[in-house]
Amino acid sequence: MLQDTALQSKPLAPYVPVSVSARHVHLQQEHVDILFGKGYQLTKDRDISQPGQYACQETVTLMGPGGKISNVRALGPLRKQTQVEVARSDARVLGISPPVRHSGDLKGSAPIVIIGPKGTVRLKEGCIIADRHIHMTPQDAQAYGVYNSQKVSVLVEGEKGGIMNQVTIRVRDDYALDMHIDTDDANAFGLTGNEYVKIIL
Amino acid sequence: MLQDTALQSKPLAPYVPVSVSARHVHLQQEHVDILFGKGYQLTKDRDISQPGQYACQETVTLMGPGGKISNVRALGPLRKQTQVEVARSDARVLGISPPVRHSGDLKGSAPIVIIGPKGTVRLKEGCIIADRHIHMTPQDAQAYGVYNSQKVSVLVEGEKGGIMNQVTIRVRDDYALDMHIDTDDANAFGLTGNEYVKIIL
Repeated sequence: MLQDTALQSKPLAPYVPVSVSARHVHLQQEHVDILFGKGYQLTKDRDISQPGQYACQETVTLMGPGGKISNVRALGPLRKQTQVEVARSDARVLGISPPVRHSGDLKGSAPIVIIGPKGTVRLKEGCIIADRHIHMTPQDAQAYGVYNSQKVSVLVEGEKGGIMNQVTIRVRDDYALDMHIDTDDANAFGLTGNEYVKIIL
Repeated sequence: MLQDTALQSKPLAPYVPVSVSARHVHLQQEHVDILFGKGYQLTKDRDISQPGQYACQETVTLMGPGGKISNVRALGPLRKQTQVEVARSDARVLGISPPVRHSGDLKGSAPIVIIGPKGTVRLKEGCIIADRHIHMTPQDAQAYGVYNSQKVSVLVEGEKGGIMNQVTIRVRDDYALDMHIDTDDANAFGLTGNEYVKIIL
């Protein structure tokens, strides 16, 4: 992969910047009420790569039949349905088998327990392993020669390099160009989130 | 990838079985003495894929500047130089930065502390992330059209599929045909160790 400094400030096709998503939760208001107290509002800590999305100061504990993981970050803004995103290695610790899914596609996904300082939410479904995906605008899609929902492959160079298949293109006006992978993919491919990777069609 | 049952009992080129190596230690006698007591002998628990190699009943704790990992399995037989193999995700927990290396290539590798029930060993070097590699006999090498030390790529199918590059071929008379990957690679590519993957040259 190229290091950031090797490229112009705006990346050129077919290269895209990559970000690593650690396990996190998106919460619905009813669950914020249970986890943190009635009417509680999450506190923005810092912006993340997609416009309008942010990491909150609040964290929760995830629990499954196999174990717990604490200090799991809540992301904002609120969603209509609570969604928990973990990597496969997290799922092994928790003792659950979440499917690989697009964000928002939660039907039949894994059950999980979320523990907050004021209460506990037991989800019948809502836990997924996020699919590898690349956010971009319609203008980016044109420049990269790809379309929404297309599956592409991505080349990663280096001593742990290789190719990730099944990477979904996600096109929306308000997206910022960025590939999102989970911590398992990052660790396996030797990526830290400061690299550019190459879309190969 | 193919499931085991989809193949003959003996796999056919270019497919190879894959095994997942969790973090583990290979110990030299002087360190067994310190960790478990003078003259202590490790107890074989079960054979592993390479002939003569075995998992022991004994475990140790690894410690780095960032944290500890307990219940790390010792493998036998003894080695001339103690070697600790971790995945990148383990290295993050420990707060160390081991290089990706072949087994036995320890010069300048990462320092690490090993804690046993009777004592502690502080290694100045000895911790690595094992390179992706495939063990095979000279006869296998001929059948697969590869040679010792060759770097090949390996195709993994499935929803977390892709290609692993930088996979080292290791040929020796007493090797059994098997690809070894660490837990990060396994989790990223959706492998559990019950699959066959395909060598692509």
